[in-house]
Amino acid sequence: MSRTTPAGTPLGDAFHVYDTTLRDGAQREGISYSVADKLAVARHLDALGVGFVEGGWPGALPKDTEFFARAAAGELQLRHAVLVAFGSTRKAGVRAEADPQVRALLDSQAPVVTLVAKSDRRHVERALRTDVAENCAMVADTVSFLRREGRRVFVDAEHFFDGYRFDPDTSLRVLDAAMTAGADVAVLCDTNGGMLPLGLAEVVREVAERTGFRLGIHCQDDTGCAVANSVAAVQAGATHVQCTANGYGERTGNADLFAVVGNLVTKLDMPVLPAGGLVDLTRTSHALAEIANLAPDTHQPYVGASAFAHKAGLHASAIKVDPELYNHMDPAEVGNTQRVLVTEMAGRASVELKGAELGLDMAGSPEAVSAVVGTVKEREAQGWSFEAADASLELLMRGALGEESPVPFALESYRVIIEKRAGADAVAEATVKLLVDGERRIATREGNGPVHALDAALRAALEPSCPWLADVELSDYKVRILTPGGSAGTHAVTRVLVGTSDHHGEWTTVGVHSNVVEASWLALVDALAFAALRTRMPVAV
Amino acid sequence: MSRTTPAGTPLGDAFHVYDTTLRDGAQREGISYSVADKLAVARHLDALGVGFVEGGWPGALPKDTEFFARAAAGELQLRHAVLVAFGSTRKAGVRAEADPQVRALLDSQAPVVTLVAKSDRRHVERALRTDVAENCAMVADTVSFLRREGRRVFVDAEHFFDGYRFDPDTSLRVLDAAMTAGADVAVLCDTNGGMLPLGLAEVVREVAERTGFRLGIHCQDDTGCAVANSVAAVQAGATHVQCTANGYGERTGNADLFAVVGNLVTKLDMPVLPAGGLVDLTRTSHALAEIANLAPDTHQPYVGASAFAHKAGLHASAIKVDPELYNHMDPAEVGNTQRVLVTEMAGRASVELKGAELGLDMAGSPEAVSAVVGTVKEREAQGWSFEAADASLELLMRGALGEESPVPFALESYRVIIEKRAGADAVAEATVKLLVDGERRIATREGNGPVHALDAALRAALEPSCPWLADVELSDYKVRILTPGGSAGTHAVTRVLVGTSDHHGEWTTVGVHSNVVEASWLALVDALAFAALRTRMPVAV
Repeated sequence: MSRTTPAGTPLGDAFHVYDTTLRDGAQREGISYSVADKLAVARHLDALGVGFVEGGWPGALPKDTEFFARAAAGELQLRHAVLVAFGSTRKAGVRAEADPQVRALLDSQAPVVTLVAKSDRRHVERALRTDVAENCAMVADTVSFLRREGRRVFVDAEHFFDGYRFDPDTSLRVLDAAMTAGADVAVLCDTNGGMLPLGLAEVVREVAERTGFRLGIHCQDDTGCAVANSVAAVQAGATHVQCTANGYGERTGNADLFAVVGNLVTKLDMPVLPAGGLVDLTRTSHALAEIANLAPDTHQPYVGASAFAHKAGLHASAIKVDPELYNHMDPAEVGNTQRVLVTEMAGRASVELKGAELGLDMAGSPEAVSAVVGTVKEREAQGWSFEAADASLELLMRGALGEESPVPFALESYRVIIEKRAGADAVAEATVKLLVDGERRIATREGNGPVHALDAALRAALEPSCPWLADVELSDYKVRILTPGGSAGTHAVTRVLVGTSDHHGEWTTVGVHSNVVEASWLALVDALAFAALRTRMPVAV
Repeated sequence: MSRTTPAGTPLGDAFHVYDTTLRDGAQREGISYSVADKLAVARHLDALGVGFVEGGWPGALPKDTEFFARAAAGELQLRHAVLVAFGSTRKAGVRAEADPQVRALLDSQAPVVTLVAKSDRRHVERALRTDVAENCAMVADTVSFLRREGRRVFVDAEHFFDGYRFDPDTSLRVLDAAMTAGADVAVLCDTNGGMLPLGLAEVVREVAERTGFRLGIHCQDDTGCAVANSVAAVQAGATHVQCTANGYGERTGNADLFAVVGNLVTKLDMPVLPAGGLVDLTRTSHALAEIANLAPDTHQPYVGASAFAHKAGLHASAIKVDPELYNHMDPAEVGNTQRVLVTEMAGRASVELKGAELGLDMAGSPEAVSAVVGTVKEREAQGWSFEAADASLELLMRGALGEESPVPFALESYRVIIEKRAGADAVAEATVKLLVDGERRIATREGNGPVHALDAALRAALEPSCPWLADVELSDYKVRILTPGGSAGTHAVTRVLVGTSDHHGEWTTVGVHSNVVEASWLALVDALAFAALRTRMPVAV
């Protein structure tokens, strides 16, 4: 399925997978995306093959305005997705073209605009303090204006289901105002999230029959039914479904994009992603959790680490005989894997697989596989995580195969001092003492913080004999506090993930320790060891 | 609604809320209940008013055998619930009364037994390695035997939905064998969790019509639809619903008891809990998470801490006018509360609402509201986040209202040293110099890491004049690296959230700086300032 973007109308327009992680998802308690985060999220969603990416509300939030400006300036190149700006209809009593909020939607240069419109009479009267006629005029005027300016327009009918139950005529008048003025999709929103699937499907079917409009669906998870409601709406005739990555969103969240897509593709045989998209589901979900700085939900449908993990003895023995009898689908289809928790077989197989991926013959060395499985198990119990730290895992595997360590030095000591005096800013200074090729090297450097200073001092000590270090950059740094085993009484440890890059690629390493500086040191040393390894390779990976 | 237990038939028998947390819930990765845990879980579920508590599989698991023995010995006094033992039908080719596993079910003394029976022909043939006739005989014999021994019997038809799609006649024959032999409920199980609500409801309706049997439902969450599927099955005629607390269970889990009950009571007006039960939903959910040693899911429907939290400025201003327009129900009904989150998206209305929540008259001081909104916006642009840091926000609001700072000291300086020598572990040491009540105080302490050492030194310097510090503990610490504005030239900053608690409650504070130690210091100082504030309050919050 290839898509073109000029008029905001992708080629495969019969069904819309519409993502609103960057707008509605950002309403989740605890999420605060930077503009760089937002650009990264949009790229991941595009790579997955989502049809529409709602980027935010330009004009209302400075970060969102900047996001659209940077996207328009060429920082966001989309292959599959069309970018959407979200906003409100014009204010009561103002012309659409004179409303600064509406102008900001145009200025965003997004080819598609989704307008939120009130479709519950009580909200029109009590929250908006106007009447139904003016509300409909606000919708119609804004849609017409945006259409004249060449934008494609979708309309989110806010509180539709509650409104339709209370006064169906008002709700239908709002849809009619939007669609008559040129909107392409009337999106029925369960804004308060109180619907259940059988009742919701009935309303969608009825509205489709009464209006003939193209309908969309937007569900919140307050009854725990957002995914089910979204899928039921599609079965009842909706051809546009709004979701967020991992179900992020206000209160209990929105419909989870990955579960909805998983269900549509594997249960209803609807090919809503481009070829090759489905297998990226798990990877994308975990990457987007990282960007949101939230732990991935291990029990999430399709993509969770436990989604295909079998613990029951009853099941585990039968699975060996006949795996397809005990999974609702093949986990590989969504890029996930089955795990049997009572055996280590899954562990050995994935180490061998990973080895093959890296060009290492792990399968030929069963004792090396045992060593890696053992170390990974032991370290993960202490809080390490190798899933996101390929480079650390590769170093571990090469070590198990008997390769010499590529770390280009031996540590004598390091010391970091952070000092703060009243009225002055805090300063950080690090000294490292190393043996490099038999020579003792001492370097002291300052930095913004302890890790920055330590990294600078380490590089200063190494650079004379490692000129390739000039191309190697610390590009990402993540910290998580963990209580391994989760039991009270255990000491918390710090897990540090360091992202490093050179001209040819990037890699991630991990360090865990009760001291954040030592954890960072471990990850930094692995990062440079891996960089050293790359200098030896005939072709940079 | 009062219930009596002798024959395992509660008075209000028309609808069964059946909990299997102690059996199927315990299959969740990471859960390992002790017998004492199991007794505590059963008591909580009984207090909530659940009709049936499945306690485990006596005979198969030693812990479960002990649980039933201790329950029978009087350690478990149930007011509402009936205790259920779970087990399998007799083995192929053995008489029921001679099967030790079946005898263990009798020996458990549970008044009700739930038997699992294979109802998918492929499982009968490939996993059980017998034929449909013998499988039906196994079901019928075991049910008859248990009925003759005075037990009430329910039958879990395992893999029913997959089996019914593959070969409906076999699946119906199994139900018939069970019910003809005297079982009371045929429970249709979506064991692999692959169903969607519309399709599942259709099957339940069809089976009810074809058989006339009393039907139950048991759903797994592999499509993210376990709650929706359970409710849809009830709407289609099932009168017995099996759930687990917080949806604990294998893989993606089971149907969440609290969401299912919340939906049945508040959306379908079915009084499935005794009077006063519903308001215990939130408390029970959190208590059972504690016993399972899992963090409560903050975004869980009905009972999550965020389930009624509002972040969007648009919503917050309207909530002030009319709270019922923006919640799908009254949170008090389930023992939960509405919260307003103050973020950069929020306007004046959220600050006023938050003030009211804290007992501060922000509404009476428009300039203080402006100051808070301005500071929050400006700081959040730099990477601060107040929505999770109530205590920092409260300090800011009190400052804006003209209250004096409760910080009980002035900083002269602090210094932290982290040192590591080859062959030894890293050590951290902090020195703080303070002025407290005009007196100069110097203290040096060691710690696991820089922040731990700094916290220890700060406390050591303060404790002589702040004896209340003895009750105050650092209980949580979170770190996130941010690039405010996201633009490439900007330096990354570190955001630290510190959780602190005393005997009466806990609070969260925030600090942001390019240096992680200084960010931690800012959050620690706010944490102690808030603790100082609490000592002044007439009643501890």
